[in-house]
Amino acid sequence: MAKEPKQLEDLFHNALRDTYYAEKKILTTLPKLARAAESEDLKAAFEKHRDETEGHVDRLEKIFAMIDKKPQGKTCPAINGLAEEGAEIIEEFKGSPAIDAGLIGAAQAVEHYEISRYGTLRAWAEELGLPDAASLLQETLDEEEATDEALSTLAESAINRQAGSEG
Amino acid sequence: MAKEPKQLEDLFHNALRDTYYAEKKILTTLPKLARAAESEDLKAAFEKHRDETEGHVDRLEKIFAMIDKKPQGKTCPAINGLAEEGAEIIEEFKGSPAIDAGLIGAAQAVEHYEISRYGTLRAWAEELGLPDAASLLQETLDEEEATDEALSTLAESAINRQAGSEG
Repeated sequence: MAKEPKQLEDLFHNALRDTYYAEKKILTTLPKLARAAESEDLKAAFEKHRDETEGHVDRLEKIFAMIDKKPQGKTCPAINGLAEEGAEIIEEFKGSPAIDAGLIGAAQAVEHYEISRYGTLRAWAEELGLPDAASLLQETLDEEEATDEALSTLAESAINRQAGSEG
Repeated sequence: MAKEPKQLEDLFHNALRDTYYAEKKILTTLPKLARAAESEDLKAAFEKHRDETEGHVDRLEKIFAMIDKKPQGKTCPAINGLAEEGAEIIEEFKGSPAIDAGLIGAAQAVEHYEISRYGTLRAWAEELGLPDAASLLQETLDEEEATDEALSTLAESAINRQAGSEG
């Protein structure tokens, strides 16, 4: 009964495991989005982000080592739900001129989930006196934000317009 | 077999239904977060955002009317996953000095999901020539971003430090 109360360290480890699971799930999801995309630019953006995601997994493994833990995922219902929504878009809008707009919307929902997780993890790493971990988390956060912006640009420049004009 | 190809209108209606379901789920989730919070400021922030969320539901109903559709939700696996993660934090960190940091992290993941949804919906409303809908969506987007910032301030100012110092 007299369990040690859980601390910020536990919360950090918990979120690290959740994010590790999420990144591995994203590694399997991005190729599906790339295959479903009509626009070559959008395909390329998904493929580029898939390569970056491998780097995100590596950084998380370095941070597990910094806190003397084995890299281990923990089922993350949020990313599973987000991936399911992406799969629904592919299923429902395959062959539609709106498919790319839908894929971008689904991918940006994933990016925002990651932006929130990495922002939280970085803040906690700073509180816990783990500046090297905080730097690695900031690097990934910067890449997630850049991906979100690149997707917004793709959406605004061509894809939404194309989908709308054929409606 | 010769179904009409789906268009941006369908994507917009689809995302509107998804977001309507999500906001209703959030209405039931925020009081749980408020009850679990230790800090009075954090409880107040969750309660304030619950009241704002009622306004978000009203705005979505106005937009359904603008496109001549009945307000109707569509199960959104992402928000269900996000809500499940919040419930896990409450379960695992109840009574811990880290509970408030964990609740803020969970709530910010929800805010980011909404920020991505409203950003996408607003862009699509503009493409579809629905400026009044785009304005309403922007109003909600502004409130979601302000909530996310308020939660970051609460986290940085006191709660993470408190959780860390007792570790």
